[in-house]
This record gives sequence, structure tokens and C-alpha cells, in this order.
Amino acid sequence: MTGSPDLAPLRAAFGTRLVTEGPQLDARARDASIVTRPAAALLFAQSTADVATALRLADEMRLPIVPRGSGTSVTGSAVPPEGGGLVLDLSRMQRILEVDPDDLVAVVEPGVLTADLRRAAAAQRLFYPPDPASLETSSIGGNLATNAGGASGLKYGTTRDYVSALEVVVPGGAVLRTGARTVKNATGYALAQLFVGSEGTLGVITAATLRLLPLPTAERTVLAGFDAVEAAAAFVGRVLAAGLLPASLELMDRRAVEAASRIVPGALMGDAAPSAQDGDEAIVLCRLDGTELGATEAQEAVADMARTSGARLVHLPHDRAEEDRMWAARRAVTPALEQASPARLGEDVVVPRSRIVAMVGRIREIARQRRLTIVIFGHVGDGNLHPSILFDPVDRDQVSRMRAAASDLFTAALELGGLPSGEHGIGELKKDFLPLAVDPVALELMRSLKTLLDPHGILNPGKLFPDGRSPIQPQRR
Amino acid sequence: MTGSPDLAPLRAAFGTRLVTEGPQLDARARDASIVTRPAAALLFAQSTADVATALRLADEMRLPIVPRGSGTSVTGSAVPPEGGGLVLDLSRMQRILEVDPDDLVAVVEPGVLTADLRRAAAAQRLFYPPDPASLETSSIGGNLATNAGGASGLKYGTTRDYVSALEVVVPGGAVLRTGARTVKNATGYALAQLFVGSEGTLGVITAATLRLLPLPTAERTVLAGFDAVEAAAAFVGRVLAAGLLPASLELMDRRAVEAASRIVPGALMGDAAPSAQDGDEAIVLCRLDGTELGATEAQEAVADMARTSGARLVHLPHDRAEEDRMWAARRAVTPALEQASPARLGEDVVVPRSRIVAMVGRIREIARQRRLTIVIFGHVGDGNLHPSILFDPVDRDQVSRMRAAASDLFTAALELGGLPSGEHGIGELKKDFLPLAVDPVALELMRSLKTLLDPHGILNPGKLFPDGRSPIQPQRR
Repeated sequence: MTGSPDLAPLRAAFGTRLVTEGPQLDARARDASIVTRPAAALLFAQSTADVATALRLADEMRLPIVPRGSGTSVTGSAVPPEGGGLVLDLSRMQRILEVDPDDLVAVVEPGVLTADLRRAAAAQRLFYPPDPASLETSSIGGNLATNAGGASGLKYGTTRDYVSALEVVVPGGAVLRTGARTVKNATGYALAQLFVGSEGTLGVITAATLRLLPLPTAERTVLAGFDAVEAAAAFVGRVLAAGLLPASLELMDRRAVEAASRIVPGALMGDAAPSAQDGDEAIVLCRLDGTELGATEAQEAVADMARTSGARLVHLPHDRAEEDRMWAARRAVTPALEQASPARLGEDVVVPRSRIVAMVGRIREIARQRRLTIVIFGHVGDGNLHPSILFDPVDRDQVSRMRAAASDLFTAALELGGLPSGEHGIGELKKDFLPLAVDPVALELMRSLKTLLDPHGILNPGKLFPDGRSPIQPQRR
Repeated sequence: MTGSPDLAPLRAAFGTRLVTEGPQLDARARDASIVTRPAAALLFAQSTADVATALRLADEMRLPIVPRGSGTSVTGSAVPPEGGGLVLDLSRMQRILEVDPDDLVAVVEPGVLTADLRRAAAAQRLFYPPDPASLETSSIGGNLATNAGGASGLKYGTTRDYVSALEVVVPGGAVLRTGARTVKNATGYALAQLFVGSEGTLGVITAATLRLLPLPTAERTVLAGFDAVEAAAAFVGRVLAAGLLPASLELMDRRAVEAASRIVPGALMGDAAPSAQDGDEAIVLCRLDGTELGATEAQEAVADMARTSGARLVHLPHDRAEEDRMWAARRAVTPALEQASPARLGEDVVVPRSRIVAMVGRIREIARQRRLTIVIFGHVGDGNLHPSILFDPVDRDQVSRMRAAASDLFTAALELGGLPSGEHGIGELKKDFLPLAVDPVALELMRSLKTLLDPHGILNPGKLFPDGRSPIQPQRR
């Protein structure tokens, strides 16, 4: 696209609500990734009708649209397309329309923050399990668009597993409703599932009916510290082999613990003396939920297994306040790293569970080879690791090595039978890795689905599909 | 189609393996529904290559194909299409390729029986949760094709939630592989989910990588008998409100208990004296799983809630053998009804949880109006009821009333905010109800997806999509 697009039809429809300059527009040139690009215009959608009008006009105008929630994407998927285009901001559609304890569902608009939904559910002793670490700032629309997961993936699955019904506006402006307020549905194709994880490239979700569970009455936590990640992984394997299914099983390396401890001091026993092999240590944070007796029984069993698995540290929180601080510390890793380093690339590789130790080894090797600090933490129960590459964005050599290291990470995950994204999505950063992660028949079908739903390519162009222009490029073979 | 199709290309490819007459072919004129229709030919696929060849040739020949597993479909989805066509029988692709306790996955061919997978997993202390009542006879391919559920839907979800990766042959013969051996996946569109629940109309699943969980170490059961279904439903509501999440919550009316008791005598306390309002009684069978202490604690809490919810009978099994008999009796309801009645239409409506009592009331009203016996049982935890209409297929008036009653059932479910199928699928029986269950935009998208993947309409034509020819017709308004 050359020059600025002609926005007259949007101006006619939305009047002064269409923002074409100023700090609100400028702020939407970036998400939480390393990608930035200016938008031509911004519209805060207030209703499904707004979204339908925008998608109808944009389709006629061939104007690219990027749907956006709270902008916490770390892959560039919420960044404006080349040539500008319209940012369709859904953050003001933030009503929790219903929390129904009889049907065990919530009905929400896309701008609702994940933590707000979880709190509204908990107020009625209900439970919305998906818990991305960004839950206080990320919105449900984005969670749906990326099939967000979190720490509870092994036991409770991901966002996809909680979708009963969706309202979606598709290019051209038609409103599609699929699903019902039911747990089960074998009535036609799973259209809702097609939109979940599609990263704003197929439609714009304007309402979601989400499945809730009864809120577990008890939670118990075990903190176990190990001298090496191999021992930590072996411990996790023993827990699962014993028939225990923790709600969360989190791994953090020494640097992750140290970072978190700067924001929530002492919560993770971070002051314990480091072992001889500084840097190889790992802690596992394990949360058991259920009934009082059941969770306590499981906690004791897990603590025993940690002790007999060579943990150098096993700690049970004394009360709920301490337990909450431990989990707050886990969630503080990302903001702590952002404070500690000029820039950070937070990655999201996922491998089969048995390959976690191998993946950690590969990450450490990549850090050495590329002479970069890569902090390791993630969801050891489900094989989803978040290696965080620290770098200085004004140091061109560091930026170059950061990109190479990210490429190495995705390649390593693929070589170990995994995928470049477990819960963040592909976005713009990893799009050229998609052909390495899915077979050509699958990729062709994905392209056909895109063309079917969005024939003029207005929805989030330049994202998800490979075009050889991703900031991180696969290595040549 | 007029006359017999020319099968020469299939004969050239498969030789004498192509069956064109005899009892094997004849047996595949029916599934477990009321629909029957003869096939022109039958092929037992032995490999993905067989399936690819068959789909390539059929696409060229414009020959309809119906994929078939063990033929337990109750909607006609496994019955041959009009004009005959090829039955592609996958029941001999029945290898369990892997059960991996480290990755927590199983890799299976489509003909594996659900119960065999569950047993192979349990032998390694792993757990495949979906448990359709037909699990001893239904195959995984069919479970995937219908998104089968079972008694554990509320706690554990349905087949869809356990799919990590699929291998699918699409019309034309291309082989598509999507997914990985991972719990999480945010790498491109959810293609696997598109095939799950598509009832053999979009592709033929030739291998599946399924997610497993650690096997819970303890199970406990509570049987509670109530004088009225309202009291039973209120009891279930109290259990969930207390933060308990049973693995199964099954409802059975008096007739279902009596039928089951003929096959597994005494297991359900079926000999207890009926109350004054004979026919209104209901029992709830509740299974709690977890750790020893946790499951026992939950069992005691549930039993207490039953007593204070007006149960006229609360029984805890004395040992594992008695517990197993109770659940065997639950699964015996369907075969018992098939023995007791010349014919049976087993239905599968699902409603929002809060509407179960209303739905049971509607079912009883329909039985009275249509002068038919309708036995009620199902999954009270997730709103999925299986009203079974008993009838005599040689009595034309009864058949006519059976069809009207089925139509009434689907209409009632839709009026209560539910769907005509929770876990059996739409098939041929309910296809004309699909436009009442999804909106026109969604239906149009489903048709477009079908055309995209199967442009010549060779895969299971006459199923799932409305054409005004379903054996059960919506009422005219």
C-alpha cells in the first residue's frame, strides 16, 4: 500500500469516534513483542454492530484490520499491518454479561480481562481454569485468539476446552453464532474451534459463552529446589506416575527465581545459598487442588517424593498468604525480567513431556553459542517452556544474535517433536516457521480456510502465514 | 444414481479384497440406528495407503464412500448412501501403536475399541477419560467422528479435548497430518478440531495421537434414590455448589433401573419398593475420583448431601466388585432395553444444566401425548439425556408416533436452549434439525467447508446437512 488509505467511508460511519492521530493511535503501534508499526486509524468498538459495520466497510475498501484487545500479544499479532490499516480495539467491550452457577457458564465480551472473569466466577464459587501468567492484563478475546493456556494446562487444558459458544463477525460483516450453553455438542462442525487460535485472521469474536467448573475447595502448594533440571524433571515424572494430577507444575531456573525475588522478595526461597553448579539449579512449584483432605494428602505425597528425589530444598507455605506470594512471584518473572533488561524476547516453545530435559539442554547450549542470557521458566507439566532472551535493542550485534538464538530455539523444539508455539500463537515473529511445524497438505488447507472466510485478505494480513518476511528466520539447510 | 456403479477402478486397485456380495456386505447395510440401506461394495482398509487409494479413486469415479468403524452409530451416519457406494471399513486398522507414560499420549489406529485403549492405558497407570456407554463395542474413529462423550463429560470433557494430533485422508487421497505429541498447541489453525465431530463428511481419520492423564488412584461411588427427578436434580446442584466435581453423575428413571436390573440383578437397588408416584422416581449414580482420602471425603460429603436432600435411599458399595457391578448396570441400560422391546430409538438431547428438570418434564409429556414408553437416563452432570423411545417396527401407527415423538424431543431441547445432539452426532436422523440448531451464517459456513474439502461430495453424502429427507422431520409451524 502506498500513501495513506482513504478513510472516508469509516469516517462517514463512525464520525469523530474514528481516531486518526494522537497518543491513543500511537500507543497501538506496538504490542508486547519486538514488532512495531504505525496504524492509520483506530476505532474503539462498543458493540457487535460496530464490529459488523467496520468489517463490512473494510471489506469493501480492501482496508486491512487488526483486531486488538489489551495488546499483550508477544508475537506481533496485535501490531498494525504494513501500510497502516485500522486497529479495531475491543478493550471497551468489557462486560461480563452473565455468570450462571446453574448452567456453569459465563457469557463475556472480548475485552474482559481474564483475571476479572476468574474473580467474577470465584465470587459465585465457580472456576474458570485457564490462567495465562498475563491474566491481570490480557483479555479473553486475545486468550481465545491465541488459544491461551497457562500453568494449569496439564490438568485443565487450554482456553479451547472451555468454549461452549461464540459470536463472531466475519469479513463482509455477517454475524455468526455457533454453539449453545451446553457442556456437550455434537451438532454440526466445530466452527467455534476454528476461530479459537486463529489470531484474528478469520473473524472477530464479539461474545463468548465459556464453561465453568465448581471452584475447588482447597489448594496446597509444594516448592521443591533441585541442583539440576534433570532431577527436577525426574521428580515431576514420579508425581505423575503416582497418579497425582497437580493443577500446576511450574519450573523456574536460578535466574528466573532471582528476578522474581526482586519483586516479591523471599517468596521462592531465592535467598537460599546457590549450589556449586550455579545456573543449573531449578525449582518446581507444584499446586494441588481438590477437597481439603485430598489436596493435603496429595501435598504430603508430593513433598515426600521431592525429598526422595534429591531435592535440596522442600518448602510448604505456612498459610494462604504465603502461598499466594509464591504464585505471585511466579507470575512476576516476566515483569521482573522486563525491568532488569533493556529488552527481552519471551518465547513459547512446547515439546513432548519426555523431551523437557533435552530442550533445557538445547536452550543452555544456544545461550552459550549465541553469547546471550536466556532465562528459563515454564510449565514443566505440559512441556511448554518460556525461554526469555535478554538483549539490548540498541546493540545491533546483540539484536542479530537474539534473532539467531530465537531461530535456534524454534528449530530445537521442532527437532524434538515439538512446536514453536504452545500458547502465544505464531503472529508475525514465527510465521516462517509454520511450514516446518505442519505438513504441506495442512498448510494448504489453512490457506484455503483463510481465503474462504476472508477472500480479500483484510483480517490481520502479514500474520500467521509464511511469507519470508518474519523478523525471525529459519536457518538455511 | 441409477443402477449399480461401475466398480472396475476399485477392483483393479484392490482385487479380491473388494467385497461386492455376501454376508459381510449385507451386514453393513445398517448401523445401530433405525436406518438401513444396501452398499454396493465393501473394503476393509488395512493401511493409510489403502484409504488414500480409495479416496483418490472414489473422487475420480464420483463414487460415494461411507467410512465405518464398528457400526455402533445410532444416527444412521454409518449407513451406506443412496445408490449404494463403498463402505470403507476401518475396523481392521486396530493397532494401539503406542502408549507412552512419559509423553502422556497414546497413538492409535481408528478401529481400536475405546475400552481397549482405556485398558492399555490403565495397564501403565494412565487414563483415557472419554467413556461412551458403548465403549466395549465402539471404536475410536467413530468416537472422533461424533465427538463422543460419556458419563465423565462435566469433569473431563469429551473426545475433542483429548486430541493432540491426527492423520486424516481427504477426498482426492492427500494425507494431512496436524498437531504434535504436546498438550498445548498454538501453531496455526486447529485443523484436527475441524475433523472431530464431522461424522465422516470431511475426511477419514487414519491415526490419532490422544492425550492421557495419570490414572486416579481411587474411585468412590454413591447411589442415591429420589421420589422425583426434581429432588434428584436439586441434589446434583448442591453437590456442584459445594465445590465437588464428580467424575460421573448419572440419572436413571425407574424403567431404566428395572431394565438394567434384568441384566445385572440387584446392582442398583432396583428391588426397593417403588414409591406412590410410580414412574417419577430417579436414581443418581455419582462417581468421585482422586486420591484415597480425597475420594473418600468427597463420597461422604455427597452421601450426606443426598440424605439431607430427601433421598429415600442412599447406598455406598461395600467393595470394588459391587461398585463395578453398579457401573456395569448403568452401561447395561441400552442392551437391556434392546432385549425388552422389539425396537428402540435411543436419543441424545442436551440442554443447559439448569433445564434438566424441564426437559424431563417435556419428555414425560411427549410420552403421554404420543402414547409411547420413553425411558429416561443420561448424564445429569452435563445436561445430556438419552430418552429411549420403545416401539414395535411392524406397527405402522407406532412407528409414526415414534417419529413424531422424536421430533417433539428435538424441538423441546431446542426450545430449552439445547441441541438435538450432545454426543451421538446428527447423521441421517436429525439432519433436518440442523438449521434449527445453528444460525444461517454458521450453516452456510459448514456447507462451504464441506465443499472446500469434498468438492465432489463423495464423503458420506446425505448425512449431517439438511435436505428435507430426514426420517425425523421438524414440525411445521
